[in-house]
Amino acid sequence: PLCLCWALGPAAAATPNILLLLMDDMGWGDLGVFGEPSKETPNLDQMAAEGMLFLDFYTASPLCSPSRAALLTGRLPVRNGFYTTNGHARNAYTPQDIVGGIPDSELLLPELLKKAGYTNKIIGKWHLGHRPQFHPLRHGFDEWLGSPNCHFGPYDSRERPNIPVYRDWEMAGRYYEDFKIDLKTGEANLTQLYLQEALDFISKQQASQQPFFLYWAIDATHAPVYASKQFLGTSQRGLYGDAVREIDDSVGKILRHLQQLGISENTFVFFTSDNGAALISAPKQGGSNGPFLCGKQTTFEGGMREPAIAWWPGHIPAGGVSHQLGSVMDLFSTSLSLAGLQPPSDRQIDGIDLLPVILQGKLIDRPIFYYRGNELMAVRAGLYKAHYWTWSNSLEEHSKGIDFCPGQSVAGVTTHTQEEHTYLPLLFHLGRDPGEKYPLSFASEEYQRAVEHISGLLQQHRATLVPGQPQLNVCDQAVMNWSPPGCEKLGKCLKAPESDPKKCSWPH
Amino acid sequence: PLCLCWALGPAAAATPNILLLLMDDMGWGDLGVFGEPSKETPNLDQMAAEGMLFLDFYTASPLCSPSRAALLTGRLPVRNGFYTTNGHARNAYTPQDIVGGIPDSELLLPELLKKAGYTNKIIGKWHLGHRPQFHPLRHGFDEWLGSPNCHFGPYDSRERPNIPVYRDWEMAGRYYEDFKIDLKTGEANLTQLYLQEALDFISKQQASQQPFFLYWAIDATHAPVYASKQFLGTSQRGLYGDAVREIDDSVGKILRHLQQLGISENTFVFFTSDNGAALISAPKQGGSNGPFLCGKQTTFEGGMREPAIAWWPGHIPAGGVSHQLGSVMDLFSTSLSLAGLQPPSDRQIDGIDLLPVILQGKLIDRPIFYYRGNELMAVRAGLYKAHYWTWSNSLEEHSKGIDFCPGQSVAGVTTHTQEEHTYLPLLFHLGRDPGEKYPLSFASEEYQRAVEHISGLLQQHRATLVPGQPQLNVCDQAVMNWSPPGCEKLGKCLKAPESDPKKCSWPH
Repeated sequence: PLCLCWALGPAAAATPNILLLLMDDMGWGDLGVFGEPSKETPNLDQMAAEGMLFLDFYTASPLCSPSRAALLTGRLPVRNGFYTTNGHARNAYTPQDIVGGIPDSELLLPELLKKAGYTNKIIGKWHLGHRPQFHPLRHGFDEWLGSPNCHFGPYDSRERPNIPVYRDWEMAGRYYEDFKIDLKTGEANLTQLYLQEALDFISKQQASQQPFFLYWAIDATHAPVYASKQFLGTSQRGLYGDAVREIDDSVGKILRHLQQLGISENTFVFFTSDNGAALISAPKQGGSNGPFLCGKQTTFEGGMREPAIAWWPGHIPAGGVSHQLGSVMDLFSTSLSLAGLQPPSDRQIDGIDLLPVILQGKLIDRPIFYYRGNELMAVRAGLYKAHYWTWSNSLEEHSKGIDFCPGQSVAGVTTHTQEEHTYLPLLFHLGRDPGEKYPLSFASEEYQRAVEHISGLLQQHRATLVPGQPQLNVCDQAVMNWSPPGCEKLGKCLKAPESDPKKCSWPH
Repeated sequence: PLCLCWALGPAAAATPNILLLLMDDMGWGDLGVFGEPSKETPNLDQMAAEGMLFLDFYTASPLCSPSRAALLTGRLPVRNGFYTTNGHARNAYTPQDIVGGIPDSELLLPELLKKAGYTNKIIGKWHLGHRPQFHPLRHGFDEWLGSPNCHFGPYDSRERPNIPVYRDWEMAGRYYEDFKIDLKTGEANLTQLYLQEALDFISKQQASQQPFFLYWAIDATHAPVYASKQFLGTSQRGLYGDAVREIDDSVGKILRHLQQLGISENTFVFFTSDNGAALISAPKQGGSNGPFLCGKQTTFEGGMREPAIAWWPGHIPAGGVSHQLGSVMDLFSTSLSLAGLQPPSDRQIDGIDLLPVILQGKLIDRPIFYYRGNELMAVRAGLYKAHYWTWSNSLEEHSKGIDFCPGQSVAGVTTHTQEEHTYLPLLFHLGRDPGEKYPLSFASEEYQRAVEHISGLLQQHRATLVPGQPQLNVCDQAVMNWSPPGCEKLGKCLKAPESDPKKCSWPH
């Protein structure tokens, strides 16, 4: 059957379905196929064995909102506005009181896919702003089950409302009230809900013979971590592992569903995560970044290198392993390519089309830029990574127990002050030293050669960079989820306090 | 063909060949299948896919000589004498001036296998003593190509002789003189030599229809790391990776050779390493311990958890993954079982027979003891590991740049003084926290329960322990490899200085 598909070639599958499985705070080291010592992800490992494993795949930001904005726009957060200028090199996201969100001027992947006849659905976390103008159905999605914010809580409905869960245009209830999460046991059936929603959507699309884009952005591995009753206590890794096992099981069910419906050879599936594991919550509420340095919030490898698997039976040769430097932004460009669409030409797109990599095993030369807020902290080209700025977090925060690099400390690298290295960047060879523990000697010829090359790429990048209007500067308690659309029907409208906009505080 | 073998069953293969592939200083994280980010070990990964992967396999000492003595005797170094009492909890091995070696009273695996008609060969590093009474051919081996010591050097033949390489009873030359290692480029053809020797031995045994035990104890990944010209510069990981690639290629050739000779289904193959990666030599001359803490010389997971793969087509179901707590000492007991022999009953054997695990997927409850010299530092039972003593190395050594945990520092755990925790052990849950970064709270019920269980095992172990005569206490420059047997024929006899025995110095 494989030969037949090859004979037909990609042309015959002009508009394949696109399924992006985006994890939340899952680390490179959390999958068996990436070396997790408990090896409890048989379905994801199998997905890799049947598809292509990416070992050098990156997010565009070590934090969730900017990473997701980058994925859906194909652009760096510093371009699409998902950053802050309130402080230097600060990570920012979309908490309940954020005023900003995804600008109308940005073109999102689902908006573009509509032109090729796709039905677009988001299941799970949106995180690109929660005010009405930022609603995903105003930015190209046709359907939604999920939430605009993280599942933090529970809140008291006075100081702060509970986070809403939407079904399409309207709120269907709130976390902890209507969508339960038991913080004591970690029990919540949300992954099952999101799984069933995915299976139903896929069935419906298959029946109607409409191509679909499904963005399955589930969040069970984001603290507070949760799992359904049937998975609680089943992992060697505790609650976090239970959540991973449930996700692994769900991915297996989704892939089998595609196969049973006979559309697996017409559905491009990509699995990855929004940023590195949140070591600050580990081990009970956070995952593993394998051999890499530090985690979420940092521009070390542990903060930004992601597990990644492409799966498309009959098109992607089984068992492939790619060292292509990839990015979540490439999922934008690759999806457009799959749909036969051109990327927008009126703006800079940072993503590249990975199909030549995935289908023909090519390697495309391109750098990876590691941003933290408004600052380009580091650049990777080939196996070299140059740090122009280093910072983990402030000593003040660190002394409060906030540690993005627990058990790890590399002198002069995991610094607690913002250290500038723009004239003499810290250079690592990620092949010999994936853990960023041994900076190359400034005096070596190897250093000179590599830094010259990377600094050239940096200058080129900086010269053409037009930063977008920063969206994550202003916070206001009045814009919280007091009365989301549909709250009247549920009797869940809350009274917003008076508007009191101020600068958001971003300590990291 | 698989079904046929199953039908025949293990009984028909009463005396399978036994092939132990023992690596030197290779870490858990050095293989693609264990998550090495460059994924450059396709043959070993394939071996795992065709056989059984062990994720929780341990050495018996974080240093090479004691580890190897334990493998070949099935007994902890503290029993077989491969330890020192010169200082508390010190790692010791067999440098050129060591007086001791493997006692005649110890029964080695090849001695026992002889009774079942095996021809026994060691290729590579012996490391159980270099004086005539310790010669491997006096301890059960029939053939030898390799060296009694590490390939350190070159030496000046006055203060210190170069290390001999033996062919059977006699020296065939010396490292750096007759067996070249280029310290500048890292070039040496030794792995090719050891590969060819293995292929030839296997062919010879197959032709003579004699069962064999081949102990392939190569050392290309021990500093000074080396690779053959054709592999130099081929890895993303530098010279260390080149050495790994050559070894991977060699293992592939050996396994294919077994298949081509038609004896793969009658040859039990096991791959593992003698201790964790030597992080002190990384990244140029040392490997990776993946997500684990510290490396060689320590009793943290990075020092003692080993990559391990069992391969026996037609007997071991393909693609198996085992969480059995295993040990290099089990290779002694398992090999005896394969040969239809009983383990010696006149002494304590620490190894267990892994065949029920490998062939039937059973799990055997047993603890792992982490020794450093004469001290039991830690005990693992199930997923819990209790540290009764912690030490990385002394502050004095550390200040000289000797670091067994580069970039890693866990407060109160990776200590630079010997810290006793015998009354209140540090407890880790290796499922939730494989990196030993988050000690469990002493006050928790979980702590109480686990420590009670482990301390019971410890008491049982201590109550029956009869330490062997320590072999690694005395050093003497007169016993160095001045005039190994056969030196006359080569004109390579050197004059030994006068005997001047003293206590060996073991700083770690």
